[in-house]
Parts: sequence; structure tokens; C-alpha cells
Amino acid sequence: MQTLTALVFDDFETLDLFGPIELFGSLPEYFHIQFASMKGGIIHNHHSVALQTIAVAELDQQTNILLVIGGKGTRLLINDSHFLQTLTMLSDNADWVLSVCTGSALLAKAGILDNKRATSNKRAWQWVTEQSTAVHWVKQARWVVDGKFYTSSGVTAGMDMALGFIADRHGRDSAKEVANYTEYRWQEDSHLDDFYNC
Amino acid sequence: MQTLTALVFDDFETLDLFGPIELFGSLPEYFHIQFASMKGGIIHNHHSVALQTIAVAELDQQTNILLVIGGKGTRLLINDSHFLQTLTMLSDNADWVLSVCTGSALLAKAGILDNKRATSNKRAWQWVTEQSTAVHWVKQARWVVDGKFYTSSGVTAGMDMALGFIADRHGRDSAKEVANYTEYRWQEDSHLDDFYNC
Repeated sequence: MQTLTALVFDDFETLDLFGPIELFGSLPEYFHIQFASMKGGIIHNHHSVALQTIAVAELDQQTNILLVIGGKGTRLLINDSHFLQTLTMLSDNADWVLSVCTGSALLAKAGILDNKRATSNKRAWQWVTEQSTAVHWVKQARWVVDGKFYTSSGVTAGMDMALGFIADRHGRDSAKEVANYTEYRWQEDSHLDDFYNC
Repeated sequence: MQTLTALVFDDFETLDLFGPIELFGSLPEYFHIQFASMKGGIIHNHHSVALQTIAVAELDQQTNILLVIGGKGTRLLINDSHFLQTLTMLSDNADWVLSVCTGSALLAKAGILDNKRATSNKRAWQWVTEQSTAVHWVKQARWVVDGKFYTSSGVTAGMDMALGFIADRHGRDSAKEVANYTEYRWQEDSHLDDFYNC
């Protein structure tokens, strides 16, 4: 059993979080999910979502997989040194770090992706890539894998990446079964990027 | 501005809810979102999600669009007459009623879909269709429209349906813009169903 910790903050992007959560959550024999935030309690976003979370300091499970999501809240967090230090600690202690959309901007700003290949949302590309010149940014990709880091493009790309991660760890049949269960048309090819020029 | 009320219950399916919420929430100029449950407070599901909701009796906005989701919790709710009465009241008062996955089983059991064409999750097809023989069930469909009712197939079919609803009300360009923003490969054809025989 692997514990997946999703790091949540105010004004997170709804589907950056809940797309991967649905897919990992469909395999409860492999993945246990917990939602964390800096202070714990209820986290709100611009889609009226109010989600209960555990404070990072109170997490009692070792995090095997860290999920770092994006959204408007990242615009403030890139200037929050306490948040970036916590992100670095969580990332260092995790076996795998997965980001969706502008979540990779947070990892980049914290220096966690230095000398790594990574991608992000195409609509926010300039802002994201400005957060670090030490990252080897890959623009045309649905998701990118470098060592323990999986970074995906915008919003729903996180779902294709999550299935890719499941396929890499537990076999393609497991990923296909989850895709069928959720009636999701999985884009299996991480290099194919329909939104490169949108 | 249209108010979309999502009706939530314990053991709801995560992405049945948050897929459509992401897409409607991407057009805040058209849609205001609220999450309701029978008693209000925190609603939990099997993916560790704990979501704050408003009690149905305390909703202060008229519901224009009612979103009825599915999940394991529906297995209990089909025997809950108070829930089904409330669902009927909410449905009668809404301009549009949208269901995802086994949400249509709830509508069917309440008699709301009598003499209407409707679809549902293919994995739960037998159980869903047993809830009412007065519904004209359409098995091979991504989603089905009949009057004010939009019913979709399993989980991610709700996202294609949501974009279809947006296209029907606000034009295809609006739906395509939301799909591009979320980097979602929208399946526009409601008749195409990859999961009919899965």
C-alpha cells in the first residue's frame, strides 16, 4: 500500500486535484489517499469547493507519492518561502513526486526540478518557465518523466499522467481497467500534445 | 447568471462531481456553483474526500441547473424515500437536470425520468435499468438529452455532457474554449460510445 498525499491550497484548480484522485482512488488495494494543507482545516477555491484537509505537520502516514497541483493560488505561493520549504521537505521525503498544470511552477521555484526535464500548462507557459531557468522545460508533451518526477500539462493532462504512473508501477492492464471503469478515453502517449499550439 | 446546485451524498463518485464542476466553473460569467446535501455539513467518500455542503433546506439561491451524481452511495439512496422526495422537488423546480453515471438510477427510481430517454454507467447497467421500466433506456450513448434532462454514461462521460450542455446554451465556441483551457480532448459526439461493450 502506497500513501498518496495531495498538497492543497486556497484557489487550487478543481480537476488538477480530483482527476488524479479518482484514478488512484479506483485502486484502493494499491493507494491510500490523504489531503494536506499548510495549516489544515477547510481549503476553498473559486469553484465553491470547500475541502477538509490535514495540516502537513499532523500527517501521520509516510508519503510515498506527493501530488502537487496547480491553479490561481500558485501565483501567491511562489513568493511564500515557508510553503516552498515545506514543499521541498515533502518532495525530498517522497518516493515519487507528481505535478499537474502549474504545480510544476511551485516545484521549479523551490529548486526541486533543477536540471530535470519537466512540463506544465500551455496557457501559463511563460509565467511557469520564468520561475526557473535551471529546469529543462519540455513544451510539447502531455506529461514528462524524469527520475522520481512526473510533471503534466494542464488540468486533464494530470489524468493521463496518473494512468501512465499506474501503468509504470502496476502494469498497463491495471491502468486500462481504471480507464474503462471511469469510461475515460486515456491518451496513453505522453509525447502527443494536442494543446501545444492552442 | 445560472445557479448550478450539485446534490452530494456520502460515498459519491469523486469525478462524477468534480469533472462537470471544473468545466462549469471555468465560465463564472454564466454559472454560480453550490454544493448541497440532505443535512448539510461535511460529506465523505471512499477517496478520502471530505466536502463542505449546504443543507437543501437552507439553499438561498433558486436552482437553475441540478447536477445529480452517482457512486456507491446510490445503492442506499434508492431505498430512501425522503431523499427521493427531495430529489423530485429539486428536479421539478430546476430548469435543467443533469445526471452523471448512476445518478440516473436515482432519478429513475424517483419516477422523474418516466417516459424519458436516458442513459447511465455501462458497468452498472443492469442495476440502473432495474430501478424503472418506465424509462426508455438508451445503452449506446455518451449522453442523452430529452427535454430538460441530460443524462450521461459513467464518470468522465459527465465532462463530455457538461461541455455539450454549455455548447447547447452558450455556443460551441464557449465549450471549445473551456476544453482548451482545461486541455481536455472533448468527445463532442453524444452518440459515440467507446464503453458500450467494455
